[in-house]
Amino acid sequence: MKSYREELWFNVSGRRAMINITPEVESGLRKSGIQDGLVLVNAMHITASVFINDNESGLHQDYDDWLERLAPHAPIDRYRHNRTGEDNGDAHLKRQIMGREVVVAITNGRLDFGPWEQIFYGEFDGGRRKRVLLKIIGE
Amino acid sequence: MKSYREELWFNVSGRRAMINITPEVESGLRKSGIQDGLVLVNAMHITASVFINDNESGLHQDYDDWLERLAPHAPIDRYRHNRTGEDNGDAHLKRQIMGREVVVAITNGRLDFGPWEQIFYGEFDGGRRKRVLLKIIGE
Amino acid sequence: MKSYREELWFNVSGRRAMINITPEVESGLRKSGIQDGLVLVNAMHITASVFINDNESGLHQDYDDWLERLAPHAPIDRYRHNRTGEDNGDAHLKRQIMGREVVVAITNGRLDFGPWEQIFYGEFDGGRRKRVLLKIIGE
Repeated sequence: MKSYREELWFNVSGRRAMINITPEVESGLRKSGIQDGLVLVNAMHITASVFINDNESGLHQDYDDWLERLAPHAPIDRYRHNRTGEDNGDAHLKRQIMGREVVVAITNGRLDFGPWEQIFYGEFDGGRRKRVLLKIIGE
Repeated sequence: MKSYREELWFNVSGRRAMINITPEVESGLRKSGIQDGLVLVNAMHITASVFINDNESGLHQDYDDWLERLAPHAPIDRYRHNRTGEDNGDAHLKRQIMGREVVVAITNGRLDFGPWEQIFYGEFDGGRRKRVLLKIIGE
Repeated sequence: MKSYREELWFNVSGRRAMINITPEVESGLRKSGIQDGLVLVNAMHITASVFINDNESGLHQDYDDWLERLAPHAPIDRYRHNRTGEDNGDAHLKRQIMGREVVVAITNGRLDFGPWEQIFYGEFDGGRRKRVLLKIIGE
């Protein structure tokens, strides 16, 4: 069994963003030399997500509007978590909808994807450096 | 390390459905000969889900009602994504709640399941052929 | 490839709870002797979750309030599933938001975590014995 580990770093200037990280995951996969196995891609922070969906900007705005309806940012005192001095209670909820991680099959040295699958980093509490972990195992 | 790959194909005639795919996953596992490891089961399309829950038709209707409340199909112009000519903006949101994939342990050549766990394909934008990927790694 | 399997047992006296299981997962990892690989941690029951987020009690109350707004427990006849004699229809929905499972990288014999990541068991229909599965594969 071979394995490969890499961290991807992000620093989103606004509060929220969705960033296509498929090229970075493919680059890590090539560096790993692994032809067959699984790749785990996960947010290492608890107010961010890694998810797979369509690379379409209208959809990303739909996600943002929808998450804001399901878990509004303001008023910040609606979340007990914000009594700790944070203002990111909403971000912890939004991340549960979008998910922490994806696991993707590797076949013949490629991400074994359907026609429209792309991997995104979802930031819900930006303004500082945060990381995504790639971990690949296989042969 | 051994690996096994199989695609399951679906063509749901209506817009939405939940289909028990546990027998197909078990069949793939037998064909793989893998006794110990992990199986990844994921939708290869971005308006469909693979999830694990109870094989109970009332629950599946509850899911459908609930998802329609959280992310209604109509009016279709409520989603920016539908300006691309699609009418499936809601399906991309519903799939995030239900999830893209499951990872299941394999022990002694069986899906290592609790008493009620069953694997389902969740279709949210039917009417065409779509796929689920099984990828098994282990020994 | 080495593998390791362990069940964690829970018996929550109330209906709902969120329990930090990171120490139990770390203990299983040490027993496995695996230095590099992946660990799957999943609820074996369909009204419970395993998720990764912050170990902060205010946040856990926020999750509980939010899940109760998205999928209220009562009136129990709002769920078709409860016509089977159950009263846990809401728990099956709450579990979909919080997720069944997490997959975590193992590097140098440790859970490869960001600064605040902790693993929780989320119970949404307590009052009886239920299990979580650890399955570790690697070397």
